[in-house]
Amino acid sequence: MSNTNRPGSTNHPGSTNQPGNATAAAARERITGYRHRFDTRFEAYFDSLGKNLDTPQPSRFTPRCLDLLRDLSLRGGKRLRVALLYEAARLVTDEKPPGLEEAALSIELLQTHGLIHDDIIDDAPVRRGGPSTYYAYRREFPEGPQTALGLAVLAGDLAAFLSMRILLEADVPAELKQALLEVQLNAGAETVTGQIIDLERDFEALPSEELLHTVCEYKSTRYSILAPLRLGLIAAGEQPAGHDARLRRYATLAGISGQMRDDYLDLFGDEDTTGKSPGSDIRSGRRSYAVRAVLARAGAAERTVVESALGDPHCTAATIDRIRRIARDHGADEELSSAMRRYAEDAAAEASAWRPRWREEAVSFFEGLPLWNVQRMR
Amino acid sequence: MSNTNRPGSTNHPGSTNQPGNATAAAARERITGYRHRFDTRFEAYFDSLGKNLDTPQPSRFTPRCLDLLRDLSLRGGKRLRVALLYEAARLVTDEKPPGLEEAALSIELLQTHGLIHDDIIDDAPVRRGGPSTYYAYRREFPEGPQTALGLAVLAGDLAAFLSMRILLEADVPAELKQALLEVQLNAGAETVTGQIIDLERDFEALPSEELLHTVCEYKSTRYSILAPLRLGLIAAGEQPAGHDARLRRYATLAGISGQMRDDYLDLFGDEDTTGKSPGSDIRSGRRSYAVRAVLARAGAAERTVVESALGDPHCTAATIDRIRRIARDHGADEELSSAMRRYAEDAAAEASAWRPRWREEAVSFFEGLPLWNVQRMR
Repeated sequence: MSNTNRPGSTNHPGSTNQPGNATAAAARERITGYRHRFDTRFEAYFDSLGKNLDTPQPSRFTPRCLDLLRDLSLRGGKRLRVALLYEAARLVTDEKPPGLEEAALSIELLQTHGLIHDDIIDDAPVRRGGPSTYYAYRREFPEGPQTALGLAVLAGDLAAFLSMRILLEADVPAELKQALLEVQLNAGAETVTGQIIDLERDFEALPSEELLHTVCEYKSTRYSILAPLRLGLIAAGEQPAGHDARLRRYATLAGISGQMRDDYLDLFGDEDTTGKSPGSDIRSGRRSYAVRAVLARAGAAERTVVESALGDPHCTAATIDRIRRIARDHGADEELSSAMRRYAEDAAAEASAWRPRWREEAVSFFEGLPLWNVQRMR
Repeated sequence: MSNTNRPGSTNHPGSTNQPGNATAAAARERITGYRHRFDTRFEAYFDSLGKNLDTPQPSRFTPRCLDLLRDLSLRGGKRLRVALLYEAARLVTDEKPPGLEEAALSIELLQTHGLIHDDIIDDAPVRRGGPSTYYAYRREFPEGPQTALGLAVLAGDLAAFLSMRILLEADVPAELKQALLEVQLNAGAETVTGQIIDLERDFEALPSEELLHTVCEYKSTRYSILAPLRLGLIAAGEQPAGHDARLRRYATLAGISGQMRDDYLDLFGDEDTTGKSPGSDIRSGRRSYAVRAVLARAGAAERTVVESALGDPHCTAATIDRIRRIARDHGADEELSSAMRRYAEDAAAEASAWRPRWREEAVSFFEGLPLWNVQRMR
């Protein structure tokens, strides 16, 4: 399996002279290796799930639900969370500690849960280049949208329970399981509150940058960066509580940088590179970092253009293009792009400070990751 | 707080000469006592939740979500699950073992999770005599049904994570926590598959009685009866694995009896007693035990009446009444009523066989409960 043709996954040739580029490239290679290893493991998990889960017999709907969970899970993207987990363990040890694979499965099952419910919340037909679970069901029940909704809610619920249940299967002492479960249950609960405030943010005409940082922190950083870091360290026998401030700092900086990149790409991205037409945040009324940057800098008449497009699902490509031009005229794209680079560099600097306490090769991964993440957008 | 005026909570005078009536009455009293004790504890849990949960600040939507969780949770019914849990511990000990209160909270939070998502799946406006969480949000966002749906999905998700998280707070050894979590996570996952097959059942013209038993087993018995039994025994230091066959037998028999009673009341119940107009299963297209009993016995022309009413939300009271008459003409009501009594008696007989291994006072509670449950309907 090669990564070469996936949009956004290769460095732009122009980036070869960037500082930190070698570190970034090394991070990218490691991520690819982890992904292959994990995907095989994830497939085996779903193969055995039918036997491990006590399900009603006979039933057509239950195996179909498991199939859809499997499809969405295995269609998974770059598995950055899994890479973070593996590398967090490597901060401490070169061995693969027991419990690490179960933690990886738990992380990605929690992600599957989040994606399924997210796509209900956003009424989103597409996820990871295929149908969202909700829309897969809607296609199967064209006359029964309520049945489709119900089955999608339940599929997401099942993934949440499975993501916690897998941790109990780890061959590790009960205290360790408890510590792993604590991280994941808190991550699950905090992510829910992040999604709630994410909905809240779109009721603000111009949300403050602080609010966007808070949304980012709770909606994605906690479970996508901080939880994998903690889980990896715990599995490797380190007590993450003593290092919590530095882990949080890194996670928050890298998280904001990553969210800014996503938001930037959504508005300013090139369809040939990103594989989707720009402006989906505007059409769904999401006041992203990019949307906020435009709104904050635009003049009164321009603001009206943006505001009437926000939340209009039928907003034309021409209007999106006009908003892009407005943004560029005011330098909003440059502003956002340098902010995301600054946050990535600050995250890398935070990781550098983990020397000499933690192992060099893993520290350099954590340095490289946010830099790679910013470079791969171009 | 008195139970006297609650519909369905008092024995009908005509039942005073029933065999097992004294045991049933004793069970009822114990249930009331447990409910008061638990409700106070549940309120204290919600009071402290604001401090225990790391939520984004400032936010209006997050505290509102916690309020709705609290409202629905504290509006809770008879707390039969909690009574089962306390009594399961009492099978073994007269003391209140550590971990029992957390298990009770976990059970009822998992119930809150299930109710919230159930009401989305069924598009149900009313729950426990108040608005369902989904409809509470719909009222708050009259212009944004999608926002209301999203917030309700998230509220249910949060309750699920909280129901597992509370077990980690118990002051018991890690092995015990792990055992409690295992029960609850399996109960959560199995209930989801039960709800899936519950949706599936309504695509069958005439589901078999076996299918209805399977739905009942997975959708409610596992988490409402078997899980509380297991949790109580585990907290009290008993290994439930060695007694699993007898616990399952009791749970399944009592579960079927209870479901038959609910289904009976839904079709044949008296509005003055049940507090709601009959026929909601027919209107929502649910092929319940009662609906199945009518369909299985009705003639061709009568079947057509029932089938065209099934799933018609606007089905009139007159049509429901006609279906009730059809059912009575064929003795379907009597059939169902004696079946539920038979299952209750079989459950009671199973509990009797727990002597002399387990403590007398708790054994007699488990004998009395299914009998009380059947009597309270009349």
